[in-house]
Amino acid sequence: MEVYDQEHFQGRRMEFTASCQNIMECGMDNIRSLKVECGSWVGYEHSSFCGQQFVLEKGDYPRWEAWSGSNAYHIERMMSFRPICSASHKECRMMLYEGENFMGRQWEICDDYPSLQAMGWGNNEIGSMQVQSGAWVCYQYPGYRGYQYIMECDCHGGEYKHYREWGTHAQTFQIQSIRRIQE
Amino acid sequence: MEVYDQEHFQGRRMEFTASCQNIMECGMDNIRSLKVECGSWVGYEHSSFCGQQFVLEKGDYPRWEAWSGSNAYHIERMMSFRPICSASHKECRMMLYEGENFMGRQWEICDDYPSLQAMGWGNNEIGSMQVQSGAWVCYQYPGYRGYQYIMECDCHGGEYKHYREWGTHAQTFQIQSIRRIQE
Repeated sequence: MEVYDQEHFQGRRMEFTASCQNIMECGMDNIRSLKVECGSWVGYEHSSFCGQQFVLEKGDYPRWEAWSGSNAYHIERMMSFRPICSASHKECRMMLYEGENFMGRQWEICDDYPSLQAMGWGNNEIGSMQVQSGAWVCYQYPGYRGYQYIMECDCHGGEYKHYREWGTHAQTFQIQSIRRIQE
Repeated sequence: MEVYDQEHFQGRRMEFTASCQNIMECGMDNIRSLKVECGSWVGYEHSSFCGQQFVLEKGDYPRWEAWSGSNAYHIERMMSFRPICSASHKECRMMLYEGENFMGRQWEICDDYPSLQAMGWGNNEIGSMQVQSGAWVCYQYPGYRGYQYIMECDCHGGEYKHYREWGTHAQTFQIQSIRRIQE
């Protein structure tokens, strides 16, 4: 991944092939544009992989709004990031549960769902999730909008029992679209 | 589709089963939240189906940021909308062309692509498109972010020869992710 301290791939440039816990410690004050050359990454609002999450697949992100997407509050920075190692478009399987702790109605998915409700899920929430293979990104709103939650088979043993385990920014069970992350 | 003039499904409520060219003429000053109960819709920034486009699939959109996604400039309103009749997740086929007017390298797609570059497309632009079946949404940035362009087999005969035909808000050929619209 190539990162720049100015928009539109201008200014100071650094290249990363592994995770970065704090861009300040890598000698960069701010990231204002970036290019993903290879693999999939997840960016975080704060250092040490905390705060809002943003999936970053191959391509050009000329401004912060290109990676931040739609957010309840606006953030113009990304302080840490890491590669997503388990991403696999072909080998993706996850179990969704109505209740927390893998309780209630369940549904196995292995495809992308821009609207879970259109595909038969009863409401706008998911209680818990178990990732069997691959890596997924879940979104608060339909059509891949709102808060993002990255779920991986090789983190937490793939178990996400409660929204508190989805990320430090998660405040509700609301999830309305889900898709696989490309390798 | 149910629309409300306050956030979180509060205030005045109206129900629509067909297109609306100007919400003001339907007796609504503003739309601040909405629920899609059935089908897929496209919302527009301005009246008469002009300006930025937003695909709306089944689910809950409690605030404007839930449907607007990530935008170069912020808009808090949606002045017109219409159903997308040709949406079909199973019967979706489109030809992408490197150059305008269906020139240059071509590529037929029938699946979702969160990163066109990860799937082998050479750059961050598409010159022209021909929709054979279904309805698609193309995005400026990877991961379904940025400006949206709705492409349908039953509009313009499915032909989109130049970015000027993608919508009144289109200013460049930049497209980095594409997905099918659910029925």
